[in-house]
Amino acid sequence: MSDIKPIEWKATYLRVLDQRELPLREDYLELRTVNQVIDAIQSLAVRGAPALGAVGGYAVVVAMLESRANESEPAVIESEIDRIRDARPTAVNLAWAVSRVRKYVHDGIERVLQEAMLIEQEDREANRALSEHGVLWLESNYPRSRYRALTHCNTGTLATTYWGTALGVLRSLHEKSKIETVYADETRPLLQGSRLTAWELKQLGIAHRIQVDSAAASAIVGGMIDFAIIGADRIANNGDTANKVGSLAVALACKRAGIPFLVAAPTSTIDVSLATGALIEIEERADREVTHIFDTQVAPDSTKVFNPAFDVTPSDLIAGIITERGVFEPGTGKTFSEFLAS
Amino acid sequence: MSDIKPIEWKATYLRVLDQRELPLREDYLELRTVNQVIDAIQSLAVRGAPALGAVGGYAVVVAMLESRANESEPAVIESEIDRIRDARPTAVNLAWAVSRVRKYVHDGIERVLQEAMLIEQEDREANRALSEHGVLWLESNYPRSRYRALTHCNTGTLATTYWGTALGVLRSLHEKSKIETVYADETRPLLQGSRLTAWELKQLGIAHRIQVDSAAASAIVGGMIDFAIIGADRIANNGDTANKVGSLAVALACKRAGIPFLVAAPTSTIDVSLATGALIEIEERADREVTHIFDTQVAPDSTKVFNPAFDVTPSDLIAGIITERGVFEPGTGKTFSEFLAS
Repeated sequence: MSDIKPIEWKATYLRVLDQRELPLREDYLELRTVNQVIDAIQSLAVRGAPALGAVGGYAVVVAMLESRANESEPAVIESEIDRIRDARPTAVNLAWAVSRVRKYVHDGIERVLQEAMLIEQEDREANRALSEHGVLWLESNYPRSRYRALTHCNTGTLATTYWGTALGVLRSLHEKSKIETVYADETRPLLQGSRLTAWELKQLGIAHRIQVDSAAASAIVGGMIDFAIIGADRIANNGDTANKVGSLAVALACKRAGIPFLVAAPTSTIDVSLATGALIEIEERADREVTHIFDTQVAPDSTKVFNPAFDVTPSDLIAGIITERGVFEPGTGKTFSEFLAS
Repeated sequence: MSDIKPIEWKATYLRVLDQRELPLREDYLELRTVNQVIDAIQSLAVRGAPALGAVGGYAVVVAMLESRANESEPAVIESEIDRIRDARPTAVNLAWAVSRVRKYVHDGIERVLQEAMLIEQEDREANRALSEHGVLWLESNYPRSRYRALTHCNTGTLATTYWGTALGVLRSLHEKSKIETVYADETRPLLQGSRLTAWELKQLGIAHRIQVDSAAASAIVGGMIDFAIIGADRIANNGDTANKVGSLAVALACKRAGIPFLVAAPTSTIDVSLATGALIEIEERADREVTHIFDTQVAPDSTKVFNPAFDVTPSDLIAGIITERGVFEPGTGKTFSEFLAS
């Protein structure tokens, strides 16, 4: 896995692994215009909150290069940067990274590129640091010789820039030979679990099984799982966590079974400006993601769809939120800003 | 819908609507041999616990006609009948119907056919009776002018012989203009919700939306749903209910939201010989149902799968089990056999 680079800056363009084609093909996209970047983000060719942070930084460089080539007015650059920031609403990392690098636009392309690279570098470091915190937390709070873990969606190298978040914790456990099996939810509608997580787990040599999302509760309540761990797209100040739709059902099953439900995310995913998860905007995506599967129509003509991309897991269902700064336990009653200040 | 006959005895063979092809094609299968019947059952061309009861009765007639044509020994007929009974393990209705008609095998084909037709007739009557009980229960316990309901899998005409069970209750509410919207889970892996339930709801003119199974918890906990209602494949004497995988997650979300989770099933689905749901055998189906979708591979080569067809919802999560004999409320502490005897 270490030689897979799902996101890479290539001097004049951003190269991303096209995740829509996995696991059957490893194709790369060369993103040279803002439209190409936005299309890659909105079509989920590139996805995962930390990865979208890295993409956001580099996308501003793309916008500046494109504007220079077109001899655009400064106002055009600013509106292009706004378009990048707003390409997807739920993952805070995208808007966070765009806002961070745009401060340097008046300093020139080199300075913006330097900041974008710093965001990527920080994400790489956060991946490893939070994975170590996650391992330590499990070893002290739920010691076992080997764990049976469940995860939802994809939170590995493909969703980040390097080691992964939730999948990073599982990788770090695997390095210590402490993983028995990982159960990966397939993650409808876009199958990030069966297509991407299974692909990563296979390459890493970690024993795993995939399952339809609906089977997660059965596995958890049936005593087949020791803990569940997911990533996050945006975390409110009280710990309420927006993540891929289906995360809430996993959390409810963990509550029923009395096993820990964990979130792993870099602090760039935390939005302390939101007191609770009720304030998180949830992206609703196209009906066709549900009415069709690979161009096969699976519902009658013009069937209406409820297609939220994310759901919000209330913090009382979360045993711990694992960050590069340590593990935040919502049960203590602290807010995230208090945790980060301490 | 009333002119759709998903199961019909045609003098010398059993005709079934091939549910694998819906909603795009309405093809019928003519089942003239035991192998054809078993293949139709195991491939889910015909499915739904009450429908499998009707099929089970007619399948014994098919076995007798086939054996007569082949001049088979009586022992062969008996082993063929065993094969039908065991074609799928979880839905009790199949074994129940086969056992009921096989008592008349020594009385000849006409007598067995008469009993099979009686099973179908009783299911038709049970459908309507339980639907009325369901409407009354909702009107007295959770009165609303119009309901927003959620259902999982398919429990309509296609799963029964006529009016439906859970979908029958929704149809009866719709007849009284009391349905605002039905949210239908798509029901992975075989998409009975988006393919079959949406097809029935469309034909019935009932407002509806489909959603990935993972979105159910989001809709329920988000306050979009007034009650959830499902069918059943086997119900233990304490009310624990085996139904399509994913039902348990819906029940857990209803518990969290404080809305009723209901089961609708004819009493032929109740297995009073099992004290609790822990004793219900859960069918695990082929990996390929999850690794491939319509022949498109969606997971890496040789990915292992956990693919239970059903899960068991503990009775403490169930507000009421609606039968043609009335509504059993597990919370009262009675067993089903006590309820049926009273």
